[in-house]
Amino acid sequence: MQKQVYPPQVLKYIPLFYVIWSDNLVTASEINVVQNTIEQDEKLSPSEKEDLLNWLQPKNPPADDVMKNWKLFISNSKVKLIESETHPLASFSEKIIRHYHTATVETTPLEHIEVNLGIQPNHYNHLFDVDVVHESSSNYYDAARLDQLLKGKHTLLIDNFRQTLNHPIFEWDIHRNKENFRQKVLDQVTFLAEKGFGALAYPNDYGGTNNMEGYAYMFENMMYADGSLCIKFGVQFGLFGGSIQKLGTKKHHDQYLTDTGKAKLLGCFAMTETGHGSNVRGIKTTATYDPKTDHIIIHTPGNNDNKEYIGNALHSKMASVFAQLIVNGKNEGVHAILVPLRDKNHELLPGVKVEDNGYKLGLNGVDNGKIWFHQVAVPRENLLNKYGDITEDGNYKSDIKNPNKRFFTMLGTLVGGRICVARAGLGGAKYSLTVAIKHALQRRQFNDSIKVQEDLLMDYPSHQVRLTPLVAGTYVYHFALDKMMETYCDESQPDKRVVETQVAGLKSIITWYANSTIQECREACGGKGYLLENRIADLKGDVDIFTTFEGDNTVLLLLAAKGVLSDFKAEFNSAGFTAVLKILGIQLNNTLTTSNPVYSNKVDKEHLYNPKFHKHALNYRTRRLTYTLAMRIRDYIKQGMPSYQAFLKVQTHLLALGKAYSVELAYETFSTYVVTMEDDKYKSLFEKMATLYALHEIRKDAAWYLEQGYLGSTKSKAIRQRVERLCTELRPHLNSLVNGFGIPEHCLTAPIAQ
Amino acid sequence: MQKQVYPPQVLKYIPLFYVIWSDNLVTASEINVVQNTIEQDEKLSPSEKEDLLNWLQPKNPPADDVMKNWKLFISNSKVKLIESETHPLASFSEKIIRHYHTATVETTPLEHIEVNLGIQPNHYNHLFDVDVVHESSSNYYDAARLDQLLKGKHTLLIDNFRQTLNHPIFEWDIHRNKENFRQKVLDQVTFLAEKGFGALAYPNDYGGTNNMEGYAYMFENMMYADGSLCIKFGVQFGLFGGSIQKLGTKKHHDQYLTDTGKAKLLGCFAMTETGHGSNVRGIKTTATYDPKTDHIIIHTPGNNDNKEYIGNALHSKMASVFAQLIVNGKNEGVHAILVPLRDKNHELLPGVKVEDNGYKLGLNGVDNGKIWFHQVAVPRENLLNKYGDITEDGNYKSDIKNPNKRFFTMLGTLVGGRICVARAGLGGAKYSLTVAIKHALQRRQFNDSIKVQEDLLMDYPSHQVRLTPLVAGTYVYHFALDKMMETYCDESQPDKRVVETQVAGLKSIITWYANSTIQECREACGGKGYLLENRIADLKGDVDIFTTFEGDNTVLLLLAAKGVLSDFKAEFNSAGFTAVLKILGIQLNNTLTTSNPVYSNKVDKEHLYNPKFHKHALNYRTRRLTYTLAMRIRDYIKQGMPSYQAFLKVQTHLLALGKAYSVELAYETFSTYVVTMEDDKYKSLFEKMATLYALHEIRKDAAWYLEQGYLGSTKSKAIRQRVERLCTELRPHLNSLVNGFGIPEHCLTAPIAQ
Repeated sequence: MQKQVYPPQVLKYIPLFYVIWSDNLVTASEINVVQNTIEQDEKLSPSEKEDLLNWLQPKNPPADDVMKNWKLFISNSKVKLIESETHPLASFSEKIIRHYHTATVETTPLEHIEVNLGIQPNHYNHLFDVDVVHESSSNYYDAARLDQLLKGKHTLLIDNFRQTLNHPIFEWDIHRNKENFRQKVLDQVTFLAEKGFGALAYPNDYGGTNNMEGYAYMFENMMYADGSLCIKFGVQFGLFGGSIQKLGTKKHHDQYLTDTGKAKLLGCFAMTETGHGSNVRGIKTTATYDPKTDHIIIHTPGNNDNKEYIGNALHSKMASVFAQLIVNGKNEGVHAILVPLRDKNHELLPGVKVEDNGYKLGLNGVDNGKIWFHQVAVPRENLLNKYGDITEDGNYKSDIKNPNKRFFTMLGTLVGGRICVARAGLGGAKYSLTVAIKHALQRRQFNDSIKVQEDLLMDYPSHQVRLTPLVAGTYVYHFALDKMMETYCDESQPDKRVVETQVAGLKSIITWYANSTIQECREACGGKGYLLENRIADLKGDVDIFTTFEGDNTVLLLLAAKGVLSDFKAEFNSAGFTAVLKILGIQLNNTLTTSNPVYSNKVDKEHLYNPKFHKHALNYRTRRLTYTLAMRIRDYIKQGMPSYQAFLKVQTHLLALGKAYSVELAYETFSTYVVTMEDDKYKSLFEKMATLYALHEIRKDAAWYLEQGYLGSTKSKAIRQRVERLCTELRPHLNSLVNGFGIPEHCLTAPIAQ
Repeated sequence: MQKQVYPPQVLKYIPLFYVIWSDNLVTASEINVVQNTIEQDEKLSPSEKEDLLNWLQPKNPPADDVMKNWKLFISNSKVKLIESETHPLASFSEKIIRHYHTATVETTPLEHIEVNLGIQPNHYNHLFDVDVVHESSSNYYDAARLDQLLKGKHTLLIDNFRQTLNHPIFEWDIHRNKENFRQKVLDQVTFLAEKGFGALAYPNDYGGTNNMEGYAYMFENMMYADGSLCIKFGVQFGLFGGSIQKLGTKKHHDQYLTDTGKAKLLGCFAMTETGHGSNVRGIKTTATYDPKTDHIIIHTPGNNDNKEYIGNALHSKMASVFAQLIVNGKNEGVHAILVPLRDKNHELLPGVKVEDNGYKLGLNGVDNGKIWFHQVAVPRENLLNKYGDITEDGNYKSDIKNPNKRFFTMLGTLVGGRICVARAGLGGAKYSLTVAIKHALQRRQFNDSIKVQEDLLMDYPSHQVRLTPLVAGTYVYHFALDKMMETYCDESQPDKRVVETQVAGLKSIITWYANSTIQECREACGGKGYLLENRIADLKGDVDIFTTFEGDNTVLLLLAAKGVLSDFKAEFNSAGFTAVLKILGIQLNNTLTTSNPVYSNKVDKEHLYNPKFHKHALNYRTRRLTYTLAMRIRDYIKQGMPSYQAFLKVQTHLLALGKAYSVELAYETFSTYVVTMEDDKYKSLFEKMATLYALHEIRKDAAWYLEQGYLGSTKSKAIRQRVERLCTELRPHLNSLVNGFGIPEHCLTAPIAQ
């Protein structure tokens, strides 16, 4: 072993080299950055350059003895690593030089290498025996600025709303008795309505500001106070009020909308039936027009045909009832009719029966119930008649002649609700991540017996890998939903079919993501996560049903996939089915052939971090799944299989397509936003999150990519390593990232998050 | 299009051919079965044989026109498919022949093909336009017989216990108030204790029957009544009683064990501390021996050093407290000491403070609390002194000199508890699957407009794929845990280290599996699954914490992986580190080289269903992960990294190894059992479940297998298809399979499971 002291110019590089070779993640292209620096370093003599470059050969790394010797130099210097410095590793090197060389020497600054390689103190602080001044988090990114970016144009509204949540009525507490809990939530809803928040999305004439986008954002923030509040609020103003606003006409608006927005008229949205959950078109409740009395008769025919899970059912005075409208003996399809449920004394009206749905896994502050109608007559005017009406002379008329199209147009008005549910799920994920990460930045666990303090939970690689991609996903989905709502509200684009497909997919993947995130956070907090006081448990129960209501996720994914197929079909309808399949097949094959095997085994950082690669990979998956799906369906149908059966046979394929499409959409939307960011500092953080999201998603489906030959083994492994590496790179900023969610202090009551 | 009527001998094959070619899952080796039959069919003329064989070429399948023609023949016959017949497809063919040919003709029976190809009515009933007499389930397998196989030698005990659960005290109800719920559960525990169930695992002298294996099985059945009952029972008899039994000596047994078994002495197990969850060795509570008074002083030094989540804390008179034992100023490590908490009037004794942990996500019938001790003195005799004692003259002595070994020996007594937790998780999974599958066999959903009835939920491929592998997993884990408990209880094998490693791994994968199963069942039942009345919701909350308590799953998996590494190390300690790595490397490479690419792309059914392939694949993964892990650690240590840091760097790798090892173990144990089965009919069912489990597990990690080159694309895809196919093959038997879990009718209260 050499005992010589390295000259200062060389010594400068030693800690960096030690870090590089101890960390097996540095690739050839990254080493290139260091090589260039050395070659251009004028302070180095040619022989010194040669020595240094010799230690930089990926195929011939420094011998173990050399490494040990470096380590000894570093240890013997007794220099402390100060993590809070701007360039900790470069400063560390400077101090080591000063320890061994008393004379002042000028050296080339190496800060840019540190930045360029993305090396963080948490990557190397464990490598040195020297004492380390630990910082649990970095303040490099300002949480308020991140919050600002997330709030965007809604800042004023949101800040105001968050302040409103500071009122004592929103103080979080444990409610076990459903009656008390429901009353509390009703009081909260009324309080918010009185402040004007209930009518936010309604037109100005009815107390609102026409601000549906702000409404969705507010909806998410409501989750920070309580899940039941959020859902009951949504039922009253979004579903009940929304059905009046969107399916009704001016007479309904004038009569009901203002009172609804103020929660003076409480209502519910009676669509789902016990026997017909997801199949709305198959509901059995009838609404039969009786010309003699000019009334519509609402009736529940069978035992299983009652309305079920209807939120606000116990508090409501009125229901927006979805039923098969029968005029002159003809079924005109599903329509919504306003049906009074109770009188002023809150007694049920004749023919109406309501039963409490009882206790649920979560959302026990929401009064869900079952409703039966026995020949209940309401005036003809109660039909919400925007898309279909009964004329004064007792005939049915509609501007939309195709009953299918009419049905889907009406259902299309539910799309806003689906965005809101996804937003609420995202709110639950943000809250849980904030609690879990703050806990992990305080809680210590195990250790090497040498150290006095146990390590922070957040310093465990497994903990970083389990939580960090979820944080990145939250940022991605936040902007994806923002954009979705903007498009949905854009009146210059009246055709909402594309948005419907998109929302169906995003609602599914985001509510599933929210559930698994909350579960991961629960487990990450151990026993503390299990206590209601820490709030994750309630969120888990509340958000669970988001995967089922406002459209069951599986059904919605099938819908999204069929939407993708229709676009595809539209393409081939013009060119001819087989022709298009052939062309597409050639294109897909070309993509592979031209890039394979160089492309499928490209593992350098530039490539793996390049948005072009992410886009290509995600888009390839969607297109490939569409193509193979179309081929399969075509073959089945050619054999004479009815198309319903053909679609049943490819069901799991459809689900895969629905997911692939939605992930691509989320990534595309986020990365389009990132490109427009002006502040380079924050832009690079967002780019890192986009990269982590994309690589993590590709990684999750690596089996498929490998099967297709799109990824080679080496690349697949490299992606896994990059995901772990990105997690450690984001580790210092996790506290800022979760603070950036902007959960107000008065809502963040979990004791472990203090 | 041909219009000729096929001769009867040929017509016989038509429905089968139509099924085969419509179902793109039939592989070359399966077609071979049909070819052989045709070649040996003496009733066919040479030209008929030729025609038939021409339609059997995988590379040149029948033209679409031919397929359409077949279909027309079948449809025009108006023959009904009767699913309840023993060989529905063969009978169907016979009837079609009789329709077209009035004369009686003898044909070769084709039943064996139907059996051999595993074709089920649900594979083809959608193919025919004819009316179908639908059977939602088959009675081919007898549920009582399956239950018998699962109960094995514990039948008498279990049947008796299940009958006991029929007492009104176990009637399930919703409990929202924790005080009432806890009292109810306490009453249930006392009731069972009085019947002798509490002492079951204790020696005969103390009211027991030494039946730890039966205890575990009973524990699982308790979940069918209530999760809180199960856990409180386990705390009282398993943890508190178990610590007296296993860490104490005869004086403790004589004084406490009988009363504990009868629940006359209620106790708790005070190990976990707020600041030290998984790191038991790092707990801070002290037990200092005071020679002057001959007492041990129990003390909680710091604010975060209190005991936490201690079950039974509010009802207990005594605690088994784990603390650092200090004798003559020397810390002798963690020991357990019996500390009285309350007097006869249930008042806390001086120096003891207890606080309620409050409401939790689940298990609210269990009284978890925090406990602080302030200089509480107990007699020296209260030290549970089996593995370490304080002599009369005030010195510490232990037969186990190595403090590390002593600590792990004491902790080893917890292994039984871990098996029980996994069993309880499995009970939760069984219950949820039973509810979800019974619901899916009744509930109808969507449809083709032509049919009068909507399809059963269970007929959707996505529903089959989401639930069936979970049923198979339940059977596999059931037998794996049985075997584990048998080995643990086998007194002829005193060294329990291997069992400890195995249990650590199995507890982790099985409790995670239980959670995801219950979640899948919740979603599969839609809104109905969200209602407490259907029981899945409570199970979800109760089982959730099983991943954390009795050893956090992540920590346990690391333990399991380190166990595997130690065995590996033991191997190379004799032969020399590098030598073994080299040999193993060559072996692993050989395995691949010799079989590649033929092996890695072998896709015929015989191979994919062959247990040898499953064993090889699962074993290859464990060995490969061990080898690469050892290599990485060796390299880090060679570079001078402290071993603690090296292990931190490979943490995610360790977790992967822990999982791989546990899955292999579960599969091996189950398939060893299946080989011994004598009844061929049930054996073939169990073989199918073993195959589904193995292929599903390989499929879940397909990315890794593809990366290693162990699987080729084609094979990986074929495995995915086989998983889907196996799910449809098991579809008719799902009802028998869940009934086979033997959940007593009086416990199966969920309305949707009626």
